[in-house]
Amino acid sequence: MAKYLQLVEQIQAQIDAEVWQPGEKLPSLRDQVSLSGMSLMTVMHAYQVLESQGIIVSRPQSGYYVAPRTEFLSQPVTHQKVQLAETVDINAFIFDVLQACRDPLTIPFGSAFPDPELFPQRQLMRALNHVSHSLTPGDAINNLPPGNEALRKTLARRYAQQGITVSPDEIVITNGAMEALSLSLQAVTEPGDWVIIENPTFYGALQAIERLKLKAVAIATDPQHGMDLNELEQALQRWPVKACWLMTNQQNPVGFTLSREKKKMLVNLLAEHNVVLIEDDVYSEIYFGADKPLPAKAFDRQGNVLHCSSFSKNLVAGFRVGWVAAGKQALRIQRLQLMSTIATSAPMQLALANYLGTRSYDSHLRRLRQVLEQRKNLARQSLKRHLPCGARINDSRGGYFLWIELPRQVNATQLYYRALEHNISIAPGSMFSSGQQYANYFRFNTAWRWDDAMEAAIARLGALIADMM
Amino acid sequence: MAKYLQLVEQIQAQIDAEVWQPGEKLPSLRDQVSLSGMSLMTVMHAYQVLESQGIIVSRPQSGYYVAPRTEFLSQPVTHQKVQLAETVDINAFIFDVLQACRDPLTIPFGSAFPDPELFPQRQLMRALNHVSHSLTPGDAINNLPPGNEALRKTLARRYAQQGITVSPDEIVITNGAMEALSLSLQAVTEPGDWVIIENPTFYGALQAIERLKLKAVAIATDPQHGMDLNELEQALQRWPVKACWLMTNQQNPVGFTLSREKKKMLVNLLAEHNVVLIEDDVYSEIYFGADKPLPAKAFDRQGNVLHCSSFSKNLVAGFRVGWVAAGKQALRIQRLQLMSTIATSAPMQLALANYLGTRSYDSHLRRLRQVLEQRKNLARQSLKRHLPCGARINDSRGGYFLWIELPRQVNATQLYYRALEHNISIAPGSMFSSGQQYANYFRFNTAWRWDDAMEAAIARLGALIADMM
Repeated sequence: MAKYLQLVEQIQAQIDAEVWQPGEKLPSLRDQVSLSGMSLMTVMHAYQVLESQGIIVSRPQSGYYVAPRTEFLSQPVTHQKVQLAETVDINAFIFDVLQACRDPLTIPFGSAFPDPELFPQRQLMRALNHVSHSLTPGDAINNLPPGNEALRKTLARRYAQQGITVSPDEIVITNGAMEALSLSLQAVTEPGDWVIIENPTFYGALQAIERLKLKAVAIATDPQHGMDLNELEQALQRWPVKACWLMTNQQNPVGFTLSREKKKMLVNLLAEHNVVLIEDDVYSEIYFGADKPLPAKAFDRQGNVLHCSSFSKNLVAGFRVGWVAAGKQALRIQRLQLMSTIATSAPMQLALANYLGTRSYDSHLRRLRQVLEQRKNLARQSLKRHLPCGARINDSRGGYFLWIELPRQVNATQLYYRALEHNISIAPGSMFSSGQQYANYFRFNTAWRWDDAMEAAIARLGALIADMM
Repeated sequence: MAKYLQLVEQIQAQIDAEVWQPGEKLPSLRDQVSLSGMSLMTVMHAYQVLESQGIIVSRPQSGYYVAPRTEFLSQPVTHQKVQLAETVDINAFIFDVLQACRDPLTIPFGSAFPDPELFPQRQLMRALNHVSHSLTPGDAINNLPPGNEALRKTLARRYAQQGITVSPDEIVITNGAMEALSLSLQAVTEPGDWVIIENPTFYGALQAIERLKLKAVAIATDPQHGMDLNELEQALQRWPVKACWLMTNQQNPVGFTLSREKKKMLVNLLAEHNVVLIEDDVYSEIYFGADKPLPAKAFDRQGNVLHCSSFSKNLVAGFRVGWVAAGKQALRIQRLQLMSTIATSAPMQLALANYLGTRSYDSHLRRLRQVLEQRKNLARQSLKRHLPCGARINDSRGGYFLWIELPRQVNATQLYYRALEHNISIAPGSMFSSGQQYANYFRFNTAWRWDDAMEAAIARLGALIADMM
């Protein structure tokens, strides 16, 4: 092993053993040279490695310190730590979970998408048909970023119907919400920057953070009320955070929706600290109350919120069309898109603009919400019948996920593998956190047609869990 | 100004003044503390900044050295240097140039795309129409990465027709070649890694390198024969290079096609150094000889070449469908795609699979090549008539670009702005290089219908150039 790596391991072990406490100053480079008998370059190299891992921090003209441990966060995660050893496995695992849902023989409780049979197939085909008759050679150019004008105007009108002022000019049409989120994060960070996320969080956030070489502070969420704003504020004071990525409505995987008051406070708090909010709102249409909940974007006065959404969860998954209402970052995001995918497919944009022009979207959404609410109730009742005592269902209105907590000793990743042998997929908690806090949780998709096979699959799942207890 | 920045500037000035020669050892950190009177932390910080800029390099257990200057490269560029001050402007400029080509009143000599009127509009609409009648709810899932199976099989067959063995399993369908290239680069590098590119190069390579925080060595190209392999070899010996991104056929912007022998040597040389070749081959179908030139991928025995291409330059621009034949990296690229755009639009993949199944692609390509060759000849003749003496057209067979060299004193970026006042766009050389070597060059797109307005625009361009001489 290289000398500097020996030193890295040694210091890491000392920090683990609390020889050096969080926040404490480490021996200076020169002292460490004397202590270790290694050269200055070797010591520097070791300190740099520890710094890049977020284990220690340097303060100019002062020295190196053990990174503060965030005991004040109920479930803190510095994602950077995981990155070094485990990432490939985590991504491979997530990839495998997603692939498993593709098998038509597998019951897709682990899927993130609703049953595509709920989508208005005939109307979408009609829209596509319209495009197939009206496409012009100029369409490729006319639909380059920021994207199709009619589509952007329709989206702006939909914001306006909720009382939110979003100009068509700040909207950029993207290859699904995933591109919108990923470009948004890229637009406001540099490698090494700090980002705040929720814990648990949509795994796409973890992956984007890793891909862009960012460091993350994961703030624990309450199953009903989401992120604790006091903890958020403390984190903002302690870390030089650039952006906060979270979901405000029907959060994935837990299901909570932030209250209106909380969204407002969140936006103000982040604005005070000059931190950009990247708001993932892809489940916003899947609410079950009377009114569509507002996004945090509604309270944005400074163009500081990047509101990302798509049609993939409520209208059509395969078109890959989403958008970001990007505020001040709109031009920057257009440029980034030109560098990464150039544009969103012109026929797909035109088809959606055409479909939305028919005004059948809202009646489709009403029916969709109704069916999803019924299915969620059926799934909940079935789970209650079959899950062994000790398992808890986190009940949330809205969305089509249930977040299920198992007794501590039951590892949901093991459950995933055992269930898969019976052609049942679930989304284990380890996908949604870089720590182990949710090892005994899993996300359950309720958006599929209810029948005897589903009931039998849930009974099987309950038996597997009981076996593991 | 912060102290460490003062020191950065001071050392930079010393290196520029050759106080410290390339390859020479810099004062040690401790000596620099004495020399500068600054603290060790400040000195370290300054050295780290200089290292991150590629100005100095550290050698473990030895110290810091002035980065070797690559005099052996005829036009070396360490892109990193440019990045610090100029990137935003360069990207904004490229964005503006691309936007200018969108204006229907502007004559698009600066465009990278051929006249969309050359594309088989009716057949494409028919394919889209077919999809609009045959789309199923399961298509979203079935066309997730690696992408539509029929389309991948068709692509594999097209490789086989050239005698190249590419398995459908190593092909990943992407949102255009730009996503294929960008994911490929991402798959094989980490921030700070070195990449070899051509000079001049497709600006997308410069942008991707910047976005991924890589360092680039740009190797000069000969207008007829492309990159000098001796220079490439020397660069591979001197720098810890991870990947080489280049074009082998109808290079953008210069137009050269590497000989078969050279492609083979290139692949072997890179394989010897364990360097991945990212081959951008988007103009491969626009050859004018009897046979389609082989890609470098044809000589790959180790899955070390990632061959990227698309339909955007020869069939349809707005569908945004491309692919990469990714060799050993295929699975990694699928995962990266799932994290960035999730997938390529299902209807677009299906439409192309349908179109390619009709077997009219090859006859379309034959006609396309014929028209493009005629148009290129007409444009060349017109340019010869109107460009003032002293301007030189780099003549290349294949492709629809002409690379035009103006006398040294004529700045093509200024020419761009002046031409734009007359609604004429060109692509100035500064887009294709992070240095100033091509300030007096521009790329001219010959793929547009020839008429009196075009002739008049070229005459105008000639007059503007003469004015500037």
